[in-house]
This record gives sequence, C-alpha cells and structure tokens, in this order.
Amino acid sequence: MTTTSEHPDPRVPVALLGLGPMGHALSAAFLAAGHPVTVWNRTPGKAAGLVARGATAAGSVAQAVRAGRVVVVCLRDDKAVRAAVVPADADWTGRVLVNLTSGEPAQAREMARWAAGRGAGYLDGAVLTPTPTIGTPAAAVLYSGSGEVFAAVRETMAALGGTAAYVGDDPGTAAGYEVALLDVFATAVNGVVHAFALASAEGIAPQRFAAFATGIGGLLPEMITRFGEQLAAGRFPGDRSTIASAAAGIGHVVNAAAGHGIDTGMLTAARRTVDRAVAQGHGADGLARLAEVLRRGGPSVPERPAVSSG
Amino acid sequence: MTTTSEHPDPRVPVALLGLGPMGHALSAAFLAAGHPVTVWNRTPGKAAGLVARGATAAGSVAQAVRAGRVVVVCLRDDKAVRAAVVPADADWTGRVLVNLTSGEPAQAREMARWAAGRGAGYLDGAVLTPTPTIGTPAAAVLYSGSGEVFAAVRETMAALGGTAAYVGDDPGTAAGYEVALLDVFATAVNGVVHAFALASAEGIAPQRFAAFATGIGGLLPEMITRFGEQLAAGRFPGDRSTIASAAAGIGHVVNAAAGHGIDTGMLTAARRTVDRAVAQGHGADGLARLAEVLRRGGPSVPERPAVSSG
Ligand SMILES: NC(=O)c1ccc[n+]([C@@H]2O[C@H](COP(=O)([O-])OP(=O)(O)OC[C@H]3O[C@@H](n4cnc5c(N)ncnc54)[C@H](OP(=O)(O)O)[C@@H]3O)[C@@H](O)[C@H]2O)c1
Ligand SMILES: NC(=O)c1ccc[n+]([C@@H]2O[C@H](COP(=O)([O-])OP(=O)(O)OC[C@H]3O[C@@H](n4cnc5c(N)ncnc54)[C@H](OP(=O)(O)O)[C@@H]3O)[C@@H](O)[C@H]2O)c1
Repeated sequence: MTTTSEHPDPRVPVALLGLGPMGHALSAAFLAAGHPVTVWNRTPGKAAGLVARGATAAGSVAQAVRAGRVVVVCLRDDKAVRAAVVPADADWTGRVLVNLTSGEPAQAREMARWAAGRGAGYLDGAVLTPTPTIGTPAAAVLYSGSGEVFAAVRETMAALGGTAAYVGDDPGTAAGYEVALLDVFATAVNGVVHAFALASAEGIAPQRFAAFATGIGGLLPEMITRFGEQLAAGRFPGDRSTIASAAAGIGHVVNAAAGHGIDTGMLTAARRTVDRAVAQGHGADGLARLAEVLRRGGPSVPERPAVSSG
Repeated sequence: MTTTSEHPDPRVPVALLGLGPMGHALSAAFLAAGHPVTVWNRTPGKAAGLVARGATAAGSVAQAVRAGRVVVVCLRDDKAVRAAVVPADADWTGRVLVNLTSGEPAQAREMARWAAGRGAGYLDGAVLTPTPTIGTPAAAVLYSGSGEVFAAVRETMAALGGTAAYVGDDPGTAAGYEVALLDVFATAVNGVVHAFALASAEGIAPQRFAAFATGIGGLLPEMITRFGEQLAAGRFPGDRSTIASAAAGIGHVVNAAAGHGIDTGMLTAARRTVDRAVAQGHGADGLARLAEVLRRGGPSVPERPAVSSG
C-alpha cells in the first residue's frame, strides 16, 4: 500500500508511462491540476509540449517510477506493458500503479499479482471517453482493485475530471466493463465508416450523409436503456420493430454493399445471428432478444449469398 | 400525376397497405391529422384498434386503392410488395403510390416504372425514425421521385410530423440513403446486443451495463459529424486515437468474447478491415480513414485466430 491520505493533495507526484494520444491527455490534466508530473515514452521526443508546461521528461521507466508516488501506465496494450514496464529495473515499493492501458480481465489480474510482488498498490482502470474529454466534466474512468488503494488515489485521479467509478475489488472488473463497452464502440465505428463508404458509392457526399446519420446515432442511448430493461425483465416485445423485419433490412444493406464491391463481412455476420434468432422462433420478438440468442449460442444457420437486387 | 393542390387538405383520403408496427403508426398519424383512412393488411384482424378510431378496413388491395387518393405502402420488403400489391387488380389511375417499404434503389426504380404504367404518381420514401416518433416532431422521412408528385402530396404526408426531406428525382435516391443509414443502425444494434451478451458473461447485469453504454452510444453523433468533415477534406488526423490502437482494442474484445464462447463474426470482420488499413500503412491515421480503405477495397489480410488472454 501507499499514501493513506484521502484529502486532495496536488503535491502528490505523478509519473506517466506512455505518451500516445491518451497518455498525453492524461499528463496534461495532471499538470493542469498542479501535480508535479514526470513522463516517459519508449520513443523519445514526445514530451516537448508537456515539458514546456512544467513536466519532467524521464530517460527511463526506473527514473519515472522513482519520481512518482502514483504511476499511471497508458500504453498500447498488455504486450507493451510487458515489454516496457515489467522488465525495467524500477523500485516500485510504496508506489501505486494505476494501469489505464486497455486490456482483458485476466491481464489485469496478472498485473495486480506482479505489482503486489513489487510492493506496489495496483488499480486497473478503463478510460471510457475520448482524449478531448480528459480533465473536463465529460471524462469517465472506471477503476477496479483494492478499495483501500482506490481511496488512497481517488483525489489524485480526480485531476482527470468527470466521473471516476469504482466497480469492484477484483482487478479484472474494470477490464470486463471495458471489453463490453469497447464492443459497442468498435462495432459502431466500423459500421459508421462502412456506411460512409456505401453512401459514397450511392453518390451521397460525406457531410450530407453525416447530417442524416447523426440522427440515427442519436437513437442509441434510448435504445440501449430500453434493451437493458428488457434483458433484465426477460421480455422482448416486438411492438416497435421485430427481428424478422430487421433480417429483411440487413439483407438490403448486404445487397447494396455487395453490388458496389464493398466488403460485407460485418453485415453477413450480423445476418447470421438474426437468421439464427428467426430459425429459433424469435422472428416476432424485439431486437433485444438477440443478446439472449448470442449468449446461448447454439447452431448457426448457413451463410446466405448476397442476391442481386431489382 | 394526380392532385396538384399544395394546400393542406385533411380531406385527402389516404389508404394504407400494411399494418405491421410501422404501417400501424403511419395509419394512426393520418387519422390523428383528420384524414379519411382506409387500411388493408394481408393477415386480417390487425385493423381493429384503427377502425375504433375511425379507419375503414378494406377487404382487398383493390378496395383500399379505390378509397385512397394517396396510397401509402409499408410492407416487409419489395418481395411483399410484389406478392401483395403488384398482382392485385386495382385501378391506380390518378393515385399517388408512396412506397415507404424499405428496399434497394433498383427496386424503387422498378416500382416507379410499374406505377407509371398504371397511371399513378410514385414517390419512394425511407422512414428514418422508430414508430413512436411518427406523428411527432421527432419523425424523419426521406422522399425521392418526381418533384411535382412530392409537391402534390407533401401537405398530406406532413401528417407524419417532423422532417420530410426531398432528396432527388431519381426514385432510387431515398433507398440509397436508406441502405447506408440502415448500415449504421443495423451494425450498431447488433454490436449493442453482442455487448450485452459479453457483459452478462463478464458478470455485469444488463441495466448496470446500460448505464455506462449509453455514454458510449452518445459519442456517435459528434464522431459521425467529424468523420464526415474528415472524409470531405480527405484528411485523417490520428491525434485523438489511431487505427493501430483500435486494432489492439478490437483484439481484446475478440479474445474476451471467444473466451466466453460468444460468436465473434462481426468483430473479426471489423478486425480484418482494421488490419488491412494497418497493412496499407494507415496505422497512425484516425479512424475515418477506414471508410476510404473499405471504398477502395484491395487485398484483405488473412483472418487471425483469437489468442488466449493472460
Ligand atoms: N485515444 C483514446 O481515445 C483512448 C480512449 C480510451 C482508451 N484508450 C486506451 O489508452 C491506451 C493508449 O492509447 P493511445 O490512444 O494513447 O495510443 P496507443 O497507440 O494505443 O498507445 C501508444 C503508446 O503505447 C506505446 N507503445 C506501443 N507499443 C509499445 C511497446 N512495445 N513498448 C513500449 N511502449 C509501447 C507508444 O510508445 P511509442 O510512442 O514509442 O510508440 C505510446 O506511448 C490504449 O490501451 C487505448 O486503448 C485510448
Ligand atoms: N418498425 C420500424 O421501426 C421501422 C422503421 C423504419 C422503417 N421501417 C420499414 O417499414 C416497413 C414495415 O415495417 P414494420 O415494422 O411495419 O414490420 P415488417 O415486419 O417489416 O412488415 C410487416 C408488414 O408486411 C406484411 N407482409 C410481410 N410479408 C408479406 C407478403 N409476402 N405479402 C403481403 N404482406 C406481407 C405484413 O403482413 P402480415 O401482417 O400479413 O404478416 C405486415 O403488414 C419495413 O420495410 C421496415 O423496414 C420500419
């Protein structure tokens, strides 16, 4: 364990390992909150802007860890953490390692064991919002791991702004949330870029398409809330729209994309799930039922070829 | 062509073919606006609630078409229109067929030819918002086809509320928008239900997950606007987040889902696109670049197996 102060203390020295877009935004927020900040990055030369604002650039992980009481790690992935942080000959005694690198629950649990073996406190975190939100009320970060460690660093981490939610003492819990939330994000992003490609092939200019697509994107929060309620209740009314209707709709998109030679991989995968739900007798149900179908698994239906339109 | 009045006229008789969730909502909106409404549905017995509010139930397509000056068709898909409407021995002379059935551009153009051969005006439409929005300011419907026909029916169609956007005189244009917008919607919905399945496997209850996931969903409109600007400018800055970072993120979701035995079809398809972008040298670019990669096509990279985490 480490500091037990629960009072705000902008004098807590913070070290930041990793200066990609997110590590950079985190460093800037700690600086803005008045903390002494020491930064390290594998590839040198990324600290200049931060140093101009008062940060210290460390030449090694060991040097950065020595300078920080709270050491925030924000690298590409667990592989990068294992390559850069684990082998470094740093003295972690009395430090808290706050790992904001995206990853999987098992990786977080393994890093917690590693930190304990080095005499360091450990929190795993998941940043849920984009870089421009960091240090503003719009930021959202989840944490899991020892509640005592969270209590010790929460005032320091408050420099990131917005919401800091502690989701449990299993260090893997934040990563569990993160993979599921990243599932929503990554799928939506890939669908959006696919739609821009399809719109372009249909002769629709990007900004004209965006003007309509923002309306579709804006439907998601209400839909997610409603799906959550229906899944909790185990009831999937088809009064607004049905799985069978969605199956027909996806078919139009597959055909249009295939007609323009645009990849249909995501859409045909979605259609297999929807077709499986129909084959299992759920065609008249609402779309939230698909989560149950995916969870239960079961036999897939064969992939259908794109049929020509017209 | 048909009526040339551009003044609101709630006495214009409207016929509705199709009483699924959307056809039902459309009928209710025309009734609420004071139009005489005649409804038809393949399977009888779905009109009771509407008849109680003043609608007339027709026993055949021909009878419904006879009663309507504007005939709105809202069936499952083009196949349903070809099965129910095309063979019906109806007199379409002087009617306007407004086809709000989802479909593909070529299908809309073919229906426009068919209607012209029957002496009817034709508009193809795409309803962009869910059933509860119909008749409210939140409704949005696109129309394409003859501008003269649109002018003739716009006051009647105003009963649906919200925005009515005329997108061009090619009857296929509304369907072009619709397939691309449905691409955003269908992909996002399937990602959301997949995420609920993954969250559940990670021990996260649906409503608890929804509370965080709505925040992710709420990021989409701003992102879509930004992607539209970047695609118009042909510039894809990686200052907020990069394709290479997204590739690592998708990997975590694939591994977590595979570890729980949940289908990974959509995610591995998304990963193939992201990997292709990296292989083409775009790893340091922002995510909007992926639309260009999809549009240009080119060689795919081989599918990677899910690796175990830890
Ligand atoms: N950007 C966002 O909007 C956002 C949002 C939420 C979560 N996150 C998460 O935050 C983490 C960092 O993301 P990011 O956007 O800053 O960019 P990133 O591209 O994911 O990570 C870049 C950082 O990782 C380092 N790195 C990569 N491989 C390495 C290795 N083998 N050894 C040592 N360092 C290595 C880079 O160092 P070099 O400069 O030397 O390459 C750089 O410091 C990721 O896990 C990401 O998922 C990002
Ligand atoms: N619901 C929404 O939120 C929404 C939003 C935007 C667009 N849309 C579009 O609106 C259209 C209608 O959707 P919906 O939600 O009302 O439900 P739907 O399930 O797509 O369509 C149901 C309607 O289609 C009819 N139908 C299906 N196959 C038929 C056939 N072979 N012959 C004759 N009629 C047939 C049904 O008649 P029976 O009752 O006899 O089966 C019923 O009237 C679809 O194209 C959909 O994509 C819907």
